[in-house]
Amino acid sequence: MKSYYAVIFTNKQTVNVEGYSEMAQSMEELARKQSGFIDFEHAREELGITISYWESLEAISKWKSDLKHLDAQEQGKDIWYQWYKVRICKVEKEYEFKRD
Amino acid sequence: MKSYYAVIFTNKQTVNVEGYSEMAQSMEELARKQSGFIDFEHAREELGITISYWESLEAISKWKSDLKHLDAQEQGKDIWYQWYKVRICKVEKEYEFKRD
Repeated sequence: MKSYYAVIFTNKQTVNVEGYSEMAQSMEELARKQSGFIDFEHAREELGITISYWESLEAISKWKSDLKHLDAQEQGKDIWYQWYKVRICKVEKEYEFKRD
Repeated sequence: MKSYYAVIFTNKQTVNVEGYSEMAQSMEELARKQSGFIDFEHAREELGITISYWESLEAISKWKSDLKHLDAQEQGKDIWYQWYKVRICKVEKEYEFKRD
């Protein structure tokens, strides 16, 4: 398995979610265009979990400092997030099941 | 940062979800009692994402082979899951934001 990385972004929103879903959609589209991007997974109930997968730590670092992404991160801290945690992880093993 | 591990379990359900939520609840409770368990995060929309955090690969391996958990895994493949992917990851870096 070629090694790759996961960025786990776990969060709780504030009550003020105006503009959030448009921004989240826009950031997913932008992330998908970055060099080294592999995949994106998202779900939200009480907790929001977004995981993006990347070929290298360099690609993650570059995406973190993208200007539009930086602006989104600032708005996230100012308006939308009560709490979040980011974990940068190296994927060491994987397996998959598909129903016939 | 003391190193630790994340198990990212991403899945799509079948249409047959009878008994699923009881089993998921029961497995979360059981996981929380295991040696080396750290935390558990879950959300589901189109995609279900469950992440459990563990102190070591040994703790993950032991949990994977727990008898009740093995039974749940079998039922998952027989009944509840259309697709799933498991990724075992080493958390290399983390940071957190909390609103004042």
